[in-house]
Amino acid sequence: MSEAKPLLLFSESMHNADMFYATRFLSADPFIYLRTEAKEMILVAEMEVERAKREAKVKDVRSLLEYGDIGAEIEDIIVELLRDEGINAVKVPKYFPVSVADALRNQGISVEVVEEVFKEREVKSWWEIELIKKAQRACEYAMRTALNIIKSCSVRNGVLIDSKGEPLTAEKVKICIEHALIEQRCTTEEPIVACGKGGANPHWTGSGEIRADEPLILDIFPRLRRERYFADMTRTVVRGEPASEVVEMFEAVLDAQNAALSLVREGVSCAEVHNCVCDIFEERGYETLRKQQQEKMQKESEEKGRQHSERHFRAKEQRKGFLHLTGHGVGLSLHEKPSLGFNEDLLRRGNVVTIEPGLYDPAFGGVRIEDLVVVLRNGCENLTRFEKRLVL
Amino acid sequence: MSEAKPLLLFSESMHNADMFYATRFLSADPFIYLRTEAKEMILVAEMEVERAKREAKVKDVRSLLEYGDIGAEIEDIIVELLRDEGINAVKVPKYFPVSVADALRNQGISVEVVEEVFKEREVKSWWEIELIKKAQRACEYAMRTALNIIKSCSVRNGVLIDSKGEPLTAEKVKICIEHALIEQRCTTEEPIVACGKGGANPHWTGSGEIRADEPLILDIFPRLRRERYFADMTRTVVRGEPASEVVEMFEAVLDAQNAALSLVREGVSCAEVHNCVCDIFEERGYETLRKQQQEKMQKESEEKGRQHSERHFRAKEQRKGFLHLTGHGVGLSLHEKPSLGFNEDLLRRGNVVTIEPGLYDPAFGGVRIEDLVVVLRNGCENLTRFEKRLVL
Repeated sequence: MSEAKPLLLFSESMHNADMFYATRFLSADPFIYLRTEAKEMILVAEMEVERAKREAKVKDVRSLLEYGDIGAEIEDIIVELLRDEGINAVKVPKYFPVSVADALRNQGISVEVVEEVFKEREVKSWWEIELIKKAQRACEYAMRTALNIIKSCSVRNGVLIDSKGEPLTAEKVKICIEHALIEQRCTTEEPIVACGKGGANPHWTGSGEIRADEPLILDIFPRLRRERYFADMTRTVVRGEPASEVVEMFEAVLDAQNAALSLVREGVSCAEVHNCVCDIFEERGYETLRKQQQEKMQKESEEKGRQHSERHFRAKEQRKGFLHLTGHGVGLSLHEKPSLGFNEDLLRRGNVVTIEPGLYDPAFGGVRIEDLVVVLRNGCENLTRFEKRLVL
Repeated sequence: MSEAKPLLLFSESMHNADMFYATRFLSADPFIYLRTEAKEMILVAEMEVERAKREAKVKDVRSLLEYGDIGAEIEDIIVELLRDEGINAVKVPKYFPVSVADALRNQGISVEVVEEVFKEREVKSWWEIELIKKAQRACEYAMRTALNIIKSCSVRNGVLIDSKGEPLTAEKVKICIEHALIEQRCTTEEPIVACGKGGANPHWTGSGEIRADEPLILDIFPRLRRERYFADMTRTVVRGEPASEVVEMFEAVLDAQNAALSLVREGVSCAEVHNCVCDIFEERGYETLRKQQQEKMQKESEEKGRQHSERHFRAKEQRKGFLHLTGHGVGLSLHEKPSLGFNEDLLRRGNVVTIEPGLYDPAFGGVRIEDLVVVLRNGCENLTRFEKRLVL
């Protein structure tokens, strides 16, 4: 029943991966995608019709003007389209705009929200994997560019000094990464170049001087500008002498990553991979979100009804240890399913996922190592060819 | 009543301008914003809490983990939050996800969809205008870089030849523009570098060799990477001898732009500005969407009930003339209100809008000139300082 129901999308396709997946038509402006059992069509702005006919995978391209005058509300245009097609029930994704859903329901058209509209996006075809590899090569080119600059610096008063005699900053390294990615026809959000204690926050993108003897996280995640596939890689390096605690963190992260990589294959659950990483960290005395969560649940069962004070307690905690999941799918989205966390989803052949354990400590900073792999029947293919060496 | 109702947003803030406007917290992952009469808060992933506390304008930062365990559905977290805050009615934007709206309504929480959640975004403060100017200077730097390369080329067999003795392509010019924008700490989607007949499609981004004697549209719209404000500018140039038709198109576009610019001031309606541009084009014998729309309406009233054949007729037409609106607001979105089309909205002091008439002809290509202006009480301030010369 749900299968037979027409699928309706309304979104732009620069950032909405479903929309690009359905149409392969790149548009910053939202447009309409409708798929019934018999046909598939897109409705675009008048001025986009010619380009859509040339570029879109969907061959039935129509102008919004066919369903409403200039300035007509998109809700009315969609109602008109569905009426014209004799459709009285559609399925839509979770993120579908409530204003359109309300308008359809007000006109007696049933709107069913489905968990995922293109579950098949998680399993990559051979040519999608080739495009991800292409993005990954660009990623490694940018990483190499950044590390070459960091290696070529001298050190003065604990700060890296570049060839111009000026302090090397995270901002400068980011610019070099971005230039390198443009050469490779990629686009990117701001990469992470996080040096020192600030790196204990896994999402801090980094700023200021790059210092010797402190861990430096480099996380680069380019997207092919045209083909729209992502890659994702993280390395952690130190110029000079890392603290022994940082060396231990690095070894734990590397061991956890290798253990996880050796588990990855078709049929293994996401939770199994993630728990393996948590086990290794906890064995070595590091905190994990898993442990915190277990303690929280225990405390809650002890102190029923005292949720409010519980919340205030949590908010004051200092966050350290393993603060995120083990990995995520990569494709037309940077973060997509499968999510390598506590879920029981089984890995499937053709999934492309990151394996990126990390440890964070406000006293030292962060250590994260991230590879990108394709799930195979009996293991995985690591698409990442970049060395993992802490000391440069 | 609607004012007093709490406002709820759920989105990322890299691309959603409302979310960034409300929080000034830049996040690729969706998060929750809630504003009541008494307070304002955001809920972010556990690992984002520290960064949010440092960076967000909103001071009450909470972790999603306070309202649901790891892996909890966002719908359940939002229901829990609203219950905890004693809220039984919210207003949300039109693009709010239907899955969350349905979950709230199922729990008896009323969800009102409002046309615009931050109407005040259309009127820029002095510091927002400063940031848009900063983006505009970056835009002009990139335009200058591109034009310098085009000027420095020689011509061989009608094709521009660069300093390496190779044909200059749209792809190469785009890369130079992107490098220039990175130097200026801007991000950008693919700029338009559209040479020759293909430029008759206003949204074609351009590819292939740049040819002499043909119109070349350069449309650059950078965004400040950190501060997130956009600028937007278009110039059309020809290396060599333009066809007389192209010269006439250029003069018509320039005259239309000047006429529109002289109209722009507080209290003038968008339609007045747009109609002025259409009038000038129609007087000189060019097609406009306005005219097509009028003819369509006339035909419809003549042939009632024959909508289907009407549609097929429309789809076969060749599109030429003035194919888009006169301009749009620019701010945290590249395209935002006010929209300088057929609407009766009045321009307000502090609006920042483009004035970008264009003419398109499949036989020759496109001509568009776009400036960015601030609406003032008695006129407008043109933020664009770049010359408008057809022949380089």
